[in-house]
Amino acid sequence: MTHLFPSDPAQRQIAGELYRHARDLPLISPHGHVDPALLADDTPFPDPARLFVVPDHYVTRMLASQGIPQSRLGVPSIDGSPVETDGRAIWRLLAENWHLFRGTPSRLWTEKVFREVFGVEKRLRRETADAIYDEISDKLRQADYRPRALFTRFNIEVLATTESPLDELTAHAKLAADGWGDRVITTFRPDNLVDPEWPGWADRVAALGALTGTDVGTYAGFLNALRARRELFVAAGATSSDHGHPTAATLVLDDGEAAVLYRKALGGGTDARDAEAFRAHMLTEFARMSLDDGLVMQLHPGSVRNHDGALHRRHGRDVGGDIPSATDYVHGLRPLLDAYGHDPRLRIVLYTLDETTFTRELAPLAGGYPALYLGAPWWFLDSPEGLRRFREAVTESAGFYNTAGFADDTRAFCSIPARHDVARRIDAGFLARLVAEDRLPLDEAAETIADLAYHLPKRVFRLDRS
Amino acid sequence: MTHLFPSDPAQRQIAGELYRHARDLPLISPHGHVDPALLADDTPFPDPARLFVVPDHYVTRMLASQGIPQSRLGVPSIDGSPVETDGRAIWRLLAENWHLFRGTPSRLWTEKVFREVFGVEKRLRRETADAIYDEISDKLRQADYRPRALFTRFNIEVLATTESPLDELTAHAKLAADGWGDRVITTFRPDNLVDPEWPGWADRVAALGALTGTDVGTYAGFLNALRARRELFVAAGATSSDHGHPTAATLVLDDGEAAVLYRKALGGGTDARDAEAFRAHMLTEFARMSLDDGLVMQLHPGSVRNHDGALHRRHGRDVGGDIPSATDYVHGLRPLLDAYGHDPRLRIVLYTLDETTFTRELAPLAGGYPALYLGAPWWFLDSPEGLRRFREAVTESAGFYNTAGFADDTRAFCSIPARHDVARRIDAGFLARLVAEDRLPLDEAAETIADLAYHLPKRVFRLDRS
Amino acid sequence: MTHLFPSDPAQRQIAGELYRHARDLPLISPHGHVDPALLADDTPFPDPARLFVVPDHYVTRMLASQGIPQSRLGVPSIDGSPVETDGRAIWRLLAENWHLFRGTPSRLWTEKVFREVFGVEKRLRRETADAIYDEISDKLRQADYRPRALFTRFNIEVLATTESPLDELTAHAKLAADGWGDRVITTFRPDNLVDPEWPGWADRVAALGALTGTDVGTYAGFLNALRARRELFVAAGATSSDHGHPTAATLVLDDGEAAVLYRKALGGGTDARDAEAFRAHMLTEFARMSLDDGLVMQLHPGSVRNHDGALHRRHGRDVGGDIPSATDYVHGLRPLLDAYGHDPRLRIVLYTLDETTFTRELAPLAGGYPALYLGAPWWFLDSPEGLRRFREAVTESAGFYNTAGFADDTRAFCSIPARHDVARRIDAGFLARLVAEDRLPLDEAAETIADLAYHLPKRVFRLDRS
Repeated sequence: MTHLFPSDPAQRQIAGELYRHARDLPLISPHGHVDPALLADDTPFPDPARLFVVPDHYVTRMLASQGIPQSRLGVPSIDGSPVETDGRAIWRLLAENWHLFRGTPSRLWTEKVFREVFGVEKRLRRETADAIYDEISDKLRQADYRPRALFTRFNIEVLATTESPLDELTAHAKLAADGWGDRVITTFRPDNLVDPEWPGWADRVAALGALTGTDVGTYAGFLNALRARRELFVAAGATSSDHGHPTAATLVLDDGEAAVLYRKALGGGTDARDAEAFRAHMLTEFARMSLDDGLVMQLHPGSVRNHDGALHRRHGRDVGGDIPSATDYVHGLRPLLDAYGHDPRLRIVLYTLDETTFTRELAPLAGGYPALYLGAPWWFLDSPEGLRRFREAVTESAGFYNTAGFADDTRAFCSIPARHDVARRIDAGFLARLVAEDRLPLDEAAETIADLAYHLPKRVFRLDRS
Repeated sequence: MTHLFPSDPAQRQIAGELYRHARDLPLISPHGHVDPALLADDTPFPDPARLFVVPDHYVTRMLASQGIPQSRLGVPSIDGSPVETDGRAIWRLLAENWHLFRGTPSRLWTEKVFREVFGVEKRLRRETADAIYDEISDKLRQADYRPRALFTRFNIEVLATTESPLDELTAHAKLAADGWGDRVITTFRPDNLVDPEWPGWADRVAALGALTGTDVGTYAGFLNALRARRELFVAAGATSSDHGHPTAATLVLDDGEAAVLYRKALGGGTDARDAEAFRAHMLTEFARMSLDDGLVMQLHPGSVRNHDGALHRRHGRDVGGDIPSATDYVHGLRPLLDAYGHDPRLRIVLYTLDETTFTRELAPLAGGYPALYLGAPWWFLDSPEGLRRFREAVTESAGFYNTAGFADDTRAFCSIPARHDVARRIDAGFLARLVAEDRLPLDEAAETIADLAYHLPKRVFRLDRS
Repeated sequence: MTHLFPSDPAQRQIAGELYRHARDLPLISPHGHVDPALLADDTPFPDPARLFVVPDHYVTRMLASQGIPQSRLGVPSIDGSPVETDGRAIWRLLAENWHLFRGTPSRLWTEKVFREVFGVEKRLRRETADAIYDEISDKLRQADYRPRALFTRFNIEVLATTESPLDELTAHAKLAADGWGDRVITTFRPDNLVDPEWPGWADRVAALGALTGTDVGTYAGFLNALRARRELFVAAGATSSDHGHPTAATLVLDDGEAAVLYRKALGGGTDARDAEAFRAHMLTEFARMSLDDGLVMQLHPGSVRNHDGALHRRHGRDVGGDIPSATDYVHGLRPLLDAYGHDPRLRIVLYTLDETTFTRELAPLAGGYPALYLGAPWWFLDSPEGLRRFREAVTESAGFYNTAGFADDTRAFCSIPARHDVARRIDAGFLARLVAEDRLPLDEAAETIADLAYHLPKRVFRLDRS
């Protein structure tokens, strides 16, 4: 019960009391990467290695950093190099190297899932590896452990997945047909259609044209095709879009200038500067579309994609080779905010991997512009210390009500309740300190934690359909 | 009594003991923005809304960030758009949205003022709004609540206001005539005369010429005019100047180069690069003037002014639309420090909005150059967490004695004692941790807190006339 | 016993228990600046001022920052200006200004050395200055206080000093002859041979040619000469090289391009851009050499050398006039990591003076690339708060096992045990919080602290000759 609470007795007692106001509230998961087919098909999970290791780049990168390459951990290769396929062998590698995860959130989450989802009480180590593998494998064959059953048991109210505009949303259609349409919704993520530097961009634009029956040879046609896909995403439940750009740059071009960049990109003649300008301008276009269709814009800038070239060449994208870099929100967002930052129809949720912007940029911006909300600490910052530092840094300038609540941002479906629970406990601890230091009355702290855990994300992400 | 102290029992007990060494010391307010006419005329404050909401951009920006525009909060417009004038209506908006301020310093300060200045014990909320409004309005009509009476009751020893060189200092003249000249002093703030990018610059330079009877058509004349104004400011009690530049850049130009930039600027032919160079060089000129007249230079760089264009167009400058940005002190200050950083006549107090420079730049610089002192956490960082992080970050490289004590930096006269009290309590808590962790003996901690609260700012800002 | 532990009773009790697992482990000092002649000659230390003040720029810069110039503190001048030579006079200046060091690590270290090495229990102040001076002077004349006796008493297992490739390693030869070769080893630090902007570079390159009997007129010859020196350093016990560049830039040039830069530099025609490219490329060359000879590469980027021009002109390099600046590891290291970041023969230990990179860059990089380890907080960050923030920031993404243990980085031989003890205590406190917050079992925390204090640095720096 005292897990993650401050050890100071006064704070711990208050944290426990506050946590009780949040603990049993339904989970709102407004941003994540669970494969919707998992819930559409409701097929059982494969073995423990494929559940806990193979798809989780937090886990594989840590092991790789100590010399156990991703290929030995079952991460699929794209260059034909051989990959371990024996789940038990992968699992043993994890167990033998479990000490590497001391002090990391991966360890916290995994142990919570072991205990709270699978009832495993043993500590993972070389000697217990096989027994735990068998115990979890066993459970995974039971009907209670199939995805939909867990979804219900986890008390998830709504789960947003993330899809490209090119996705045909068949999984979501099946979910809707099964009456799960309100519970599992999609998110519109157009990055691979607005980044001319992403290999294959022109082909994907062509595919967008084909999918929508639109002539995407012109910029106006391109925008129309995107609008058409947004409409379908909205129909499939989407309440937000998601944008993961290299920087936070935004730009307001007139239609002529944008069309020139678009044509240049289609012709393959784009340089880095043009590409940046096009991506920056497209954020403005998406903001304009949001004024019409109400999608909340999520911005995730500041990651250098595929920093680890060797990893990228062997295993492709999204396997843990991205590294954050310094991000300038103040100048980057200014054009967009100047255009629409006061429009009540627009809502932007900003994430960062650069903590230095918490007090210097993000909190002052969110504490000023009506359109802006701060998203939860993301990726490397989604951790007890990261969550705590976030509240300590942003609250004084942005308050609690310019933040958007927790987002688990995960593909690891089984870890969703653990991740939300960590966030709720850290928020309880932070609020408890405010109470213990006589900075906030207990009753207001209790109201606040319930807002952070449930009411606020529901409202900010327009999941209350308001 | 335990307000803001750490909740750890050992630290709390020590903090209480240390705080007693600082609590009753007179307030030194070496940097702030109180209107001197307030004290010169000693007229009663208007209603509570005009005291607590309208002029306080910490308050109005937070409400605006949640969709309550500044015009509904009584902030004067410059574009003719209508503005709420009913104090009670503004007050109700504050009360109904008081939850937005949970965890913010605005809430702490306001509640301390309610309680300690006005004796209001009720918590602000929709239901209590009118009663509190009436209770404070009542008090504001009493003689005890007029500015000079409060000044004395607040135990303020000296309060520095901030004026442009174009200010005729009539309020200060009246204060001097009334025997208040040592208690309320001015500060020389020439930003609007050295920034050619600030609209109206040439007109203000002309006004400077007229005011001083100097030919400001030449750079030498411009410097003479500034020197003449400094002399009058010194006569009106000023012990410091204040410089709020976009960056920390300094530059040492020879007279010919500076004259070229000046002429270009007067002719309206300045670009951004020239303007930056001129501002940077003028800091060096002001440093040279300080060698002669002893004014302590305060530097406040790193704010993007008028970031919120809509707000600026409607309500003008200084209403909360500025946003911090990353600031480079190491390269920026080098030319000035290389020229005068060891001159015992020069004293510079450096402020920042960019916490990332605390350990990387500011503490190493202040812990090396004799001329440099670190000013208190400023603006968005003037808060319990900000003050705590400042001490945690800078003390190990700069010690306590290269810092300049607290500066309230406020227009909100009634909040001055609350702000100083927060700083004293946070310093007590920080020192208490050092004592509790056996890093500093209690008697030295006690001496230190008294120095931080009173003796150090008095000495650093040359208020002891040394 | 509770020195530096958290004051929370639960954490303090656990910290004490953990500390017992680290306290008596031998000291591994893999990076520092002790003069090897000190141990080779084993001559007694001079007076207390020359032991504690004159060579310690942490101490002299703090005093200088408050107006006591380095010349009054006995720091040798290079411009012929007079310098205080009376040790007792220097000592009194320290004592009279001891309050400046409140809250600094210098004070912690010094008081620990007073107490634990010299048995001095009095507090330093004006009144006790002479008595302490006499007491320490007395001890320094005793055989027990000669360097080798202290080395043994300090329980140092291995101490690495740092030498230029031009050093003839005579002190190390004498140490080896005396059977101390395994205990005192050298480190290969080639900065003054790879930085064409460092005055006298071409002369030093010529000296390298002469020393190795190599024709350094060609780039290939230059590399051969460096390789020859590395070989001798390895023979003298070196297990690592050290690289203190202005930035973290690396570059992979082909031999032709590198040769062009080299020739240009030899001809004196190098500009800042060329010099940066040459330094950046040389890191790649040294990485290649490490693949062959196994030297661990230590990188110390991000310091603006000789920022304080007046100090540099009067007292030369390395007297406290360097200032950190913002450092970009993500883009800077990418070329080198792309080339060799997965090579198991390469090991890089990265240090920083820029804390903002802890969570944004360093922990993600070290938690991904097998070659990378994070070095201990360095210089201005080697302090209780700096060490604590380092663990709080990097552990969640990099774990404990991608860090390299403590490095004292000091010239102040007598302070080595104090510095290691501070690090062990802070790590004990950090781990104790994890235990108290139910994030790590006590037995694993105990194993971890012993790893951090001893096993990990020994392994990472290849001091186990593995």
